[in-house]
Amino acid sequence: MRVVDLIRRKRDSGELTRDEIEELIAAYTRGDIPDYQMSAWLMAVVLRGMTRPEIAALTEAMLHSGCVLDFSGLPGRKVDKHSTGGVGDKPSLVIAPIVAAGGVKVPMISGRGLGHSGGTLDKLESIPGFNVNLSLADFRRVLETCGCALIGQTAEIAPADKKIYALRDVTGTVESPALICASIMSKKLAEGIDALVLDVKTGSGAFMKKIEDAVNLAELLVDTGKRMGKNVVALLTDMNQPLGRKAGNAMEVAESIEVLNGAGPPDLRELCLELAAWMFFLGQRVKSVEEGKKLSADLIASGHAREKFREIVGLQGGDMGVIDVGGGREKKEDTIDPAVGLEFHKRIGDTVERGEPLCTLHYNAEGRLEEARNLVETAYQIEQEKPKVVPPLIHRVIGA
Amino acid sequence: MRVVDLIRRKRDSGELTRDEIEELIAAYTRGDIPDYQMSAWLMAVVLRGMTRPEIAALTEAMLHSGCVLDFSGLPGRKVDKHSTGGVGDKPSLVIAPIVAAGGVKVPMISGRGLGHSGGTLDKLESIPGFNVNLSLADFRRVLETCGCALIGQTAEIAPADKKIYALRDVTGTVESPALICASIMSKKLAEGIDALVLDVKTGSGAFMKKIEDAVNLAELLVDTGKRMGKNVVALLTDMNQPLGRKAGNAMEVAESIEVLNGAGPPDLRELCLELAAWMFFLGQRVKSVEEGKKLSADLIASGHAREKFREIVGLQGGDMGVIDVGGGREKKEDTIDPAVGLEFHKRIGDTVERGEPLCTLHYNAEGRLEEARNLVETAYQIEQEKPKVVPPLIHRVIGA
Repeated sequence: MRVVDLIRRKRDSGELTRDEIEELIAAYTRGDIPDYQMSAWLMAVVLRGMTRPEIAALTEAMLHSGCVLDFSGLPGRKVDKHSTGGVGDKPSLVIAPIVAAGGVKVPMISGRGLGHSGGTLDKLESIPGFNVNLSLADFRRVLETCGCALIGQTAEIAPADKKIYALRDVTGTVESPALICASIMSKKLAEGIDALVLDVKTGSGAFMKKIEDAVNLAELLVDTGKRMGKNVVALLTDMNQPLGRKAGNAMEVAESIEVLNGAGPPDLRELCLELAAWMFFLGQRVKSVEEGKKLSADLIASGHAREKFREIVGLQGGDMGVIDVGGGREKKEDTIDPAVGLEFHKRIGDTVERGEPLCTLHYNAEGRLEEARNLVETAYQIEQEKPKVVPPLIHRVIGA
Repeated sequence: MRVVDLIRRKRDSGELTRDEIEELIAAYTRGDIPDYQMSAWLMAVVLRGMTRPEIAALTEAMLHSGCVLDFSGLPGRKVDKHSTGGVGDKPSLVIAPIVAAGGVKVPMISGRGLGHSGGTLDKLESIPGFNVNLSLADFRRVLETCGCALIGQTAEIAPADKKIYALRDVTGTVESPALICASIMSKKLAEGIDALVLDVKTGSGAFMKKIEDAVNLAELLVDTGKRMGKNVVALLTDMNQPLGRKAGNAMEVAESIEVLNGAGPPDLRELCLELAAWMFFLGQRVKSVEEGKKLSADLIASGHAREKFREIVGLQGGDMGVIDVGGGREKKEDTIDPAVGLEFHKRIGDTVERGEPLCTLHYNAEGRLEEARNLVETAYQIEQEKPKVVPPLIHRVIGA
């Protein structure tokens, strides 16, 4: 195999075989292919695309570049959820304890924030003491003990993705559905799960602004997962406005706890119930999504979900008091300030009177306040008439 | 300037400013931009193209990455010729002495062979002792003394092109008219010339198989040269069959000397006269191309052109006896064997009888003879009828 021939073939819209893709990724991960050849190939992929079999081969090659966890020894189905990210996107923190409380195991490996969208890891770290850097052995122990464990990507999981992602970031090759799909799925399928529920966001606050792009990505993700023998569905959900009323790491932890307490904003609660229901359904814990929703609501009402969250936080070294006082505002990270954020008082279609607040900014340094205030102000549009179409929370389900 | 933004802009079919291109090339040449970002940008250029102003800016940036020779102190116009290369393409060896003998200066910096096409340098090196690696000072001295000097690219000329070309070669980013144009013109315009005649080949033996691709490249080259204040024309010439009767370094030197002796194959002689005529015309030595052709024929007939070639060979350390015995077959290079080659006995449209030879293979090792024989045999097609269209030697002139 000559790498330049593979680059030229993709440049000319040709297809690579499974073996060629496997060898390309293996050799790059070993360091036998230089970055400059990989980045040329990645740009050709961005502009020429990949076929479904190519994407599946790429995902599998990246998956097998590192450890693939095997939890088949643990009883019960293992199901995870992944979101493509957006403003105020916090369901993972609510769903993981609900589903674990319901008896389906959730081995969740999450990412950091990207751009304007905070990651689950950043949110968890606003809980004082919470350790997201468990070894894989400790990950398994926590999962075994309480049915759920929440960690960050380790060096052993899909190292090819780590290396390729770093290269994509500096070579303008992030925006490719094929590459995004392989990156997400190679990490998620390394978790040793039986099924996966995807929350693919679309709208002005999402990475996929246009619904057709989100549908395309959702279809790729579902197809790739199914080709690899996993049960996968994707919910296409709205990100034309923040999810819930709060954005900011510690504030989102607080809001997640509100939902686990049976309160919280209706849109966030609804989406959490829906996603948890699909996880129960794919995890064969219930016979229908409807039944899964009822189970999820019951687990919140009974306090079991909240108790499970306390248990997870405790096992991962976090301050369990946070769950009682409702959030981890005190802790301050080196790079991300968890006590800073936004509180949204109005949603699309709400009435607003002159003088009424639209949004509260929580800040602890004057520095960029003006810039933030301007950004927030220009994000709102006030009309005389109620908008004809208020975006639904869930646009559609793909792969069911 | 963030390089990743320039990559993304080109990826999305946007245009870069002159300043951005200048800074990109300067920073890459300095080593401040890594290869992996440059190769991603190059692939985006291959697939998205460049505008004419972008190509001119790229050419200029590459030109000014190194020395630009200044021969304005030498009397007379300086004119060069460049060919995009093909099988048996040897006019440079004939034209340079003709034009220098006619009083127009020819500071010629040539390249090595690429793929199946031998380079002028390789041909010159089959003359025992001929030194193509003159310093720029010696280049000037030879030019001053005899009106012509023939050397290879030095480290001082367009170093950006050298670095970018090496990267293109291994990243599948060679085939871009914009990048080919900038590579050719940045080197040629560094020669300190007033005008340039381009021989753009098209046909099955050329890099540009399709005439429309060759026209496109020719137009880019002429436009770029004119934007930089140079007088440039391009002759679109045929490469559906070899030029002349011989291919192979030493054999091509011999055939060139035949033309300088007033003999040689008619197609080669005709193309040499035409190209030399255009050089005389752009060099303001004659009032018309017709007049230039007559002057060229006279310089051959009088023996002045042949004498000039002897002079150049002598000044550059070559064995002048080669011109008397007709070729440098004895010398053997490390990597290229000049005594090996092909002799073609038939051209497109010629009649052939059963048992008549089509082609003679000159070889000195049995190793790949069978492969070569098969390749040659399958290159011929014998029909009952004479072909309706025999390709013309010159398809058209662009930029006149």
